[in-house]
Amino acid sequence: MKYLVTGAAGFIGSHITDRLLGLGHEVVGFDNFSTGQRPFLADAYRNPKFSMIEAELLDPSAITEAVIGCDAVIHFAANADIRGGLASPRKDLEQNTLATFNVLEAMRESGVKRILFSSTAAALGEPTEFPTPETCAIPDQTSLYGASKMACEGLISSYCEGFGFEGYVYRFVSILGPRYPHGHVYDFVKQLLADPNHLNIIGDGSPKKSYLHVHDCVNAVLHTGDTLRTANQASKRYQVYHLGAPEYCQVKDSASWICNAMSLQPELRFGTGARGWIGDNPFVYLNIEKILSTGWKPTFSIRESVEDTVAWLISNPWIFESRE
Amino acid sequence: MKYLVTGAAGFIGSHITDRLLGLGHEVVGFDNFSTGQRPFLADAYRNPKFSMIEAELLDPSAITEAVIGCDAVIHFAANADIRGGLASPRKDLEQNTLATFNVLEAMRESGVKRILFSSTAAALGEPTEFPTPETCAIPDQTSLYGASKMACEGLISSYCEGFGFEGYVYRFVSILGPRYPHGHVYDFVKQLLADPNHLNIIGDGSPKKSYLHVHDCVNAVLHTGDTLRTANQASKRYQVYHLGAPEYCQVKDSASWICNAMSLQPELRFGTGARGWIGDNPFVYLNIEKILSTGWKPTFSIRESVEDTVAWLISNPWIFESRE
Repeated sequence: MKYLVTGAAGFIGSHITDRLLGLGHEVVGFDNFSTGQRPFLADAYRNPKFSMIEAELLDPSAITEAVIGCDAVIHFAANADIRGGLASPRKDLEQNTLATFNVLEAMRESGVKRILFSSTAAALGEPTEFPTPETCAIPDQTSLYGASKMACEGLISSYCEGFGFEGYVYRFVSILGPRYPHGHVYDFVKQLLADPNHLNIIGDGSPKKSYLHVHDCVNAVLHTGDTLRTANQASKRYQVYHLGAPEYCQVKDSASWICNAMSLQPELRFGTGARGWIGDNPFVYLNIEKILSTGWKPTFSIRESVEDTVAWLISNPWIFESRE
Repeated sequence: MKYLVTGAAGFIGSHITDRLLGLGHEVVGFDNFSTGQRPFLADAYRNPKFSMIEAELLDPSAITEAVIGCDAVIHFAANADIRGGLASPRKDLEQNTLATFNVLEAMRESGVKRILFSSTAAALGEPTEFPTPETCAIPDQTSLYGASKMACEGLISSYCEGFGFEGYVYRFVSILGPRYPHGHVYDFVKQLLADPNHLNIIGDGSPKKSYLHVHDCVNAVLHTGDTLRTANQASKRYQVYHLGAPEYCQVKDSASWICNAMSLQPELRFGTGARGWIGDNPFVYLNIEKILSTGWKPTFSIRESVEDTVAWLISNPWIFESRE
């Protein structure tokens, strides 16, 4: 099979790329390298079944050309900077909503009909049902990022209904593991490398969040969107899966695991309030019964995912410099 | 108060405009007249408190200028052609999603924070809960129109959360009454005026749909988004209301009311299947408990709404020619 992977140089996209190549598939990577990292594709570049297109999804001709001859598109390119949404609202609109529209139109023009899409638990706003199932109530959006991802979901489902597309939408919790490029583990490790005696935590450390290891994430995506596909659900061209761990932790738990993993005992300086910033959701815990029912299960606990992330960050300090 | 009404020359927008002017408010109309009708604004043009801007919402400078000095925006401009979505997917994206983004950004730039928005029952896809409440499950979108309107809802709610906007979103069933410019009553009356002996009905006539008279619709919008505002709900800056009648009818009922109203007994020629077209929802029936709890109630039955629409269409045959 030949896959187009958008965001191929990104955290999750590069793992998807490696896994597909390992399975013998052909992969066309697509990335504008705005946040993607060339080192993430070091293995891929050595594989003759990999080719890379450096271009913008806002350029319809580039994506239209890229999609020709592919069997499916794994559309994981996105502006994933939730906190930055208020500073530049147009970015979520363009890099997420418009980019996804361009991907869908390119697919339609080329007759490619299968799309796997990285949505997010952030598109669920602040749910009232925990663990939160795929069928939860229509959320009030609390971030421009979440709003844009839900807009993408709507586009994909309407293309499934209107144009016979086959769509797989994955609402991720925060993903951890090797190549982890931003988020609280990144911030904490970076702080502790600079000053092992103090750790500043935004907010009071009470937020409860679920996390998933990137290897478990990639397993789930390819298991349902590639291996199984609609074999078991032929009548339904559009599937949404919640992807997370069957547990959650508090930010203060994670902070203590990180300190332990680094053999440090810094003074912890907490802020106030449960929300780190506007749009931050103080409780993220997804119901994953649907994805579990497909036979997939996570192999890392949250603590193991945090520890694996710390180990990778310490071995790859260049990541901190790459994003200054 | 000074209101900006986008889509002021449209079916519902022109009624909102007339009502606001009748209440003594100042109104700036904004319309590109792509489907709007100048005769709908005949009364408004005679009112010194009315001014009109003929421009595109895709032109950010035009909308930014229009919004300056307004107390609120009633954003009712839209591409409302559900059926045409598959022929030109970009239209829903541009005229609904992007246009709404431009309105929100113009408001943010000018410090205008109150927005009333016309969403739609079509944004609920094909619900499984009837009558369908505001808190129904996240829908699979079945039309590009519905997807774009839900994208607009997400933008508005994220602006309420992120920028302190005050948002009122109204998910309408199909609206009927004077100035009704398209839909099944329009199609049926047009057919019967051309040939009183035959009436072709798309589909089998079984679809069950709720309708609301435009006067009841305008009452509900201004009652909640203007008169009451957040007085009773000060803690919630974002409100979604389902707007419909507390009943539904079948297309075949409506056909018979229309024939009666026109004193005709044509041969009814039914098609097959419950859906008129891809994306058509065979059952639309909203739970209106929330809007009823504000004290609003509808004054027209569905049958009365249909009859009033027929009467207006017969008295205004120019409408059929204006849209050829």
